[in-house]
Amino acid sequence: MSRPTPMSGFPELLPGQRMVEQQVLDVLRGTFQLHGYAPIETRAVEPMSQLARKGEIDKEIYVVRRLHAAEDDTAAGDELGLHYDLTVPFARYVQEHSGHLQFPFRRYQVQKVWRGERPQEGRYREFTQADIDVVGAEVLADHHDLEIPLVALEAYERLHTELGLPPVRMRVNNRKLAEGFYRGLGVEEPGAVLQRVDKLDKIGPDKVRGLLTGELGLTTAQADACLALSQVSTADASFVEQVRALGVASELLDEGLELLASLVAAAAERVPGRLVADLSIARGLDYYTGTVYETELSGHESMGSVGSGGRYDSLASDGRTTYPGVGFSFGVTRLLVPLFGRGVIGASRSVPSAVLVAVDAEESRLRSEQVARALRANGIPCEVAPKADKFGKQIRYADRRGIPFVWFGDVDGQVKDIRSGDQVPAEATTWRPPAADLRPGVVHQG
Amino acid sequence: MSRPTPMSGFPELLPGQRMVEQQVLDVLRGTFQLHGYAPIETRAVEPMSQLARKGEIDKEIYVVRRLHAAEDDTAAGDELGLHYDLTVPFARYVQEHSGHLQFPFRRYQVQKVWRGERPQEGRYREFTQADIDVVGAEVLADHHDLEIPLVALEAYERLHTELGLPPVRMRVNNRKLAEGFYRGLGVEEPGAVLQRVDKLDKIGPDKVRGLLTGELGLTTAQADACLALSQVSTADASFVEQVRALGVASELLDEGLELLASLVAAAAERVPGRLVADLSIARGLDYYTGTVYETELSGHESMGSVGSGGRYDSLASDGRTTYPGVGFSFGVTRLLVPLFGRGVIGASRSVPSAVLVAVDAEESRLRSEQVARALRANGIPCEVAPKADKFGKQIRYADRRGIPFVWFGDVDGQVKDIRSGDQVPAEATTWRPPAADLRPGVVHQG
Repeated sequence: MSRPTPMSGFPELLPGQRMVEQQVLDVLRGTFQLHGYAPIETRAVEPMSQLARKGEIDKEIYVVRRLHAAEDDTAAGDELGLHYDLTVPFARYVQEHSGHLQFPFRRYQVQKVWRGERPQEGRYREFTQADIDVVGAEVLADHHDLEIPLVALEAYERLHTELGLPPVRMRVNNRKLAEGFYRGLGVEEPGAVLQRVDKLDKIGPDKVRGLLTGELGLTTAQADACLALSQVSTADASFVEQVRALGVASELLDEGLELLASLVAAAAERVPGRLVADLSIARGLDYYTGTVYETELSGHESMGSVGSGGRYDSLASDGRTTYPGVGFSFGVTRLLVPLFGRGVIGASRSVPSAVLVAVDAEESRLRSEQVARALRANGIPCEVAPKADKFGKQIRYADRRGIPFVWFGDVDGQVKDIRSGDQVPAEATTWRPPAADLRPGVVHQG
Repeated sequence: MSRPTPMSGFPELLPGQRMVEQQVLDVLRGTFQLHGYAPIETRAVEPMSQLARKGEIDKEIYVVRRLHAAEDDTAAGDELGLHYDLTVPFARYVQEHSGHLQFPFRRYQVQKVWRGERPQEGRYREFTQADIDVVGAEVLADHHDLEIPLVALEAYERLHTELGLPPVRMRVNNRKLAEGFYRGLGVEEPGAVLQRVDKLDKIGPDKVRGLLTGELGLTTAQADACLALSQVSTADASFVEQVRALGVASELLDEGLELLASLVAAAAERVPGRLVADLSIARGLDYYTGTVYETELSGHESMGSVGSGGRYDSLASDGRTTYPGVGFSFGVTRLLVPLFGRGVIGASRSVPSAVLVAVDAEESRLRSEQVARALRANGIPCEVAPKADKFGKQIRYADRRGIPFVWFGDVDGQVKDIRSGDQVPAEATTWRPPAADLRPGVVHQG
């Protein structure tokens, strides 16, 4: 068999990179849990009837079928597809298990999703998302509109301060603000305006103005006001004045301005410098009804959004109960794979082991195993050399894997830092490596 | 939309159960890392040509196809299928990335796998496995035959002592021992004998004897000796004498006896009482060539094997290099879902929160948020009450979720243990819950 080749759109990490990814996921999970978010996982497949409901995305679905499907498989009803996000399965999970859940229900969910997109830079066919949502039964208070982006910002900030990932800039808007403004202008179809404004980044203000006056029949003054609104972007509450200066008024606008201003204020206090009110953020998806946000890595804007979400009035509805919510989705693969690919980050070693325990001779392997047991009892990851080679060769074994320490002799032995060459007497039951060497670190290369 | 119904064969956990599963996975991962195993994940899909090579299992494969597959998708070659174990993808990963790996290579891999089997008790169409393997390039020393089951036993023992799961009994055999014995008996096709002996549990000794003398043409004396061997089972090295007493000799038998005896001795020292040499263990899979093991939960044998593996001479081969290895696969779903289903274990609460911070009035919500921030800064998971309800209602909110503590007032406030009703003054910046209450615990119901 010849060597297999990588499959486009299905990124796979090397062990060191996977250890970095695990540290990232541990930070996310730790942050979510501190805020009371409970974990769930949903099955990878959903009935096609559920997956295909969103229209636009259905060409991207992977259909799943048993190779030798039996008669009764088809009789059982629906075909299956792989989920392409974690929202559709979460909505189904909430409905299916609602009798066992307490609302408001905070959950996080870290799983792979699949999209049959044409592979290209930054697009994946399989990728990991980490979602948080808080959903209510029938009602969900406004303060959750603040909660979700603040949890997200806290998580990103920990990735920055604890693992050295680039800091983020989260751009936030509020649908009520935009809709209130458009309605205050006398526009009848605020959703249609939002859809056009959403194209600003791609086609520029002139073409958007053309669409607004052409397709939607807005006056030039109205179109200009919409564009002026979308150009407001401030890191503090001064956006409120800038919007007021545009001379439009409505109750919904006031409500949106107030919600967004309180989010900007809370973020400035808790995670200063990371969040901006950016009224150009529209987010195409119809179901958002309040706060919406997108997140970029500062200095790596070309990677696109690495996290987004918003407020929705109806995650799901079963006729009896409607479930409103606020959610945020971290694009874990979208965040990490480009950073690995560009050489921005890497792992300090390719194995968890902080220590290689050398083996003198095969007859004394048991002695080396006892050293390893003593180290592990103190939580120090280590491995025993696979072969009683010359010590120089065993040191090279450690070096090739990035293992910083080699242990020689008995529990009462010697430990060598192979980076400095320093070798000192040590007791395996009490010795500890420096805290920074205990686990593989994230290395910053660019 | 009516309430969705569960999909047979695709078990989904409630949040509390998922927190228990995460603790189980953390113990596994922690144990693997202490022993120097590096994490990898492989994509969920492999080319059908790879998946279908093992013959017997191919009816169970889920084929994956884009809903609107384009021409060039088919042109790109192979159809795709979901992996049904972690061994086939690992073999492909080792070959594809061999230039970036160091051998012997220790890896662990925790992922979902899919099999289109007919759903029934204990059979799943989607389930989580946790695999460890150590593979060499061309060669792999015998001491790894000891290493893998000892790591597996250590992991199971930690699940028992740290989380209170039932202890295990690992039954171990060695293919060399069996093959050496059969050859010593003058049997030409030891593999064929092994296949029949593997059916002992299902059809009993008389029918196996009939197959051996009938299908394979063994003499009654030979068949009786094979059955006598399979009945040897000891928790210490006394199996060696019992086998010797059967009067068969061969070099391969000696080698197998020695390997198995050293494993039994090492296990008796490190994890006493959990491993037995059981010479009835055959394991159907052809590729095992040395130690083989199966694991049951003591007191829950009807659940079947919850972990198995063995030594193989060729995980993969690309014509230039052959990769021998030893591996073990933990059936995480097979272990946990029946224990949840039988009510043996559960979670002490349904949320990570150890504390609910009460809210006096919506106007003072910010004060409650500050209490929560102080608690979180000390690593205490908590949540703020969603609504400034009467305190009795807020306490019931905590109670329904199993949250043990409710905080009243300011950072300098009062904390109530709602189980005992005790309420004491406390400072949120210094107060800590008892260690046992910090995280949700595993509750034992039966």
